[in-house]
Amino acid sequence: MTNKGQILRLLNYKNLLKHLQTLGFKKVFSDNISDTLEISSSLVRKDFGNFGITGNRKGGYDIDSILAKIDEILGKDEIQKVIVVGTGRIGQALMNYQGFIKEGIQIVAGFDNDFSKVSEGEDIPILHLDKLPEFVKEKNIKIAIMCVPQLVAKHTLDMLANSGVGGVLNFTPIKFQSSNEVTVNNINIVHELENLIYIVNKQKTT
Amino acid sequence: MTNKGQILRLLNYKNLLKHLQTLGFKKVFSDNISDTLEISSSLVRKDFGNFGITGNRKGGYDIDSILAKIDEILGKDEIQKVIVVGTGRIGQALMNYQGFIKEGIQIVAGFDNDFSKVSEGEDIPILHLDKLPEFVKEKNIKIAIMCVPQLVAKHTLDMLANSGVGGVLNFTPIKFQSSNEVTVNNINIVHELENLIYIVNKQKTT
Repeated sequence: MTNKGQILRLLNYKNLLKHLQTLGFKKVFSDNISDTLEISSSLVRKDFGNFGITGNRKGGYDIDSILAKIDEILGKDEIQKVIVVGTGRIGQALMNYQGFIKEGIQIVAGFDNDFSKVSEGEDIPILHLDKLPEFVKEKNIKIAIMCVPQLVAKHTLDMLANSGVGGVLNFTPIKFQSSNEVTVNNINIVHELENLIYIVNKQKTT
Repeated sequence: MTNKGQILRLLNYKNLLKHLQTLGFKKVFSDNISDTLEISSSLVRKDFGNFGITGNRKGGYDIDSILAKIDEILGKDEIQKVIVVGTGRIGQALMNYQGFIKEGIQIVAGFDNDFSKVSEGEDIPILHLDKLPEFVKEKNIKIAIMCVPQLVAKHTLDMLANSGVGGVLNFTPIKFQSSNEVTVNNINIVHELENLIYIVNKQKTT
């Protein structure tokens, strides 16, 4: 596992296999995977070989075993503690997102610079931003979701990196580059919609 | 403008230029853009030439003019009406997201199959899912944001496509392929976090 392409394929395998499990599948064939994900089946078999997953073209692969192996590679044997910075509507929705915990992701706190939002007694407390550096160090937090207003995004990212956070999922409209200190994955919802609007409008006129 | 790479660059230009505007910039040089977006400056100039944007290496390009031209190409002269399907926490947060309207995107309604969530009198009404096909046809809706539970995602996507929606921004964990009827952009938040966790854990151990 050395590049981003491989890790993305791994996540796509996992996603597909979990979906097949909900349909009652026990075994899967590399051809099924390659058709669905639009990659070659030899690449699928090569990846599985690299992960140490055994199986064959005729008998298929055991889905449970592949998923266990993938979780092992992803380091999912321990719960990953994540914080949310900026507790507006999107931030609060993510703090309470039900899809995280079954993937071993636990949101442990929210942070906001608005004192009126602070609520330390909750299951998932909202703390003032001033407490972030101490919290991150004490709890050894490595991952943050950033949903702050655009104007304070750069400042917040710097604060996270300086506190020792190594990965940021960025929901602000500003596209940040990863640095040596911090890896940034950007999700720009407006961008995605504008892209769709362009494609759909173009289809209408052609 | 013929491929997805070009439209994504266009959106990246727009994003960067809007950011520079907030800093007080009036002019921009292709070299600045190429450095920031990590593409060649000749490609930037070629894109601008294709869009009919005039300017030169020495004098720079007028930011207002580029942005107006980009919005024209993106079809942003008219307000784009978008619906949100599934009004859980994420859906409701997106219904009220402040970043859309300044980009000419208006959320006109939410839809849910839970009657207790229906509230027709609001600024942005929440209607029952049964009313979706009629609403989409009547209001000529082309774009939907899908935030429904995983189990009903496929059914919902089919319903949207059959109603005439041409573009879907999919927040469910299932990765859908685009078809002739409907273009799907997938945003998988859990995926993005798992990817970050993997990268950050790997950095710790190397």
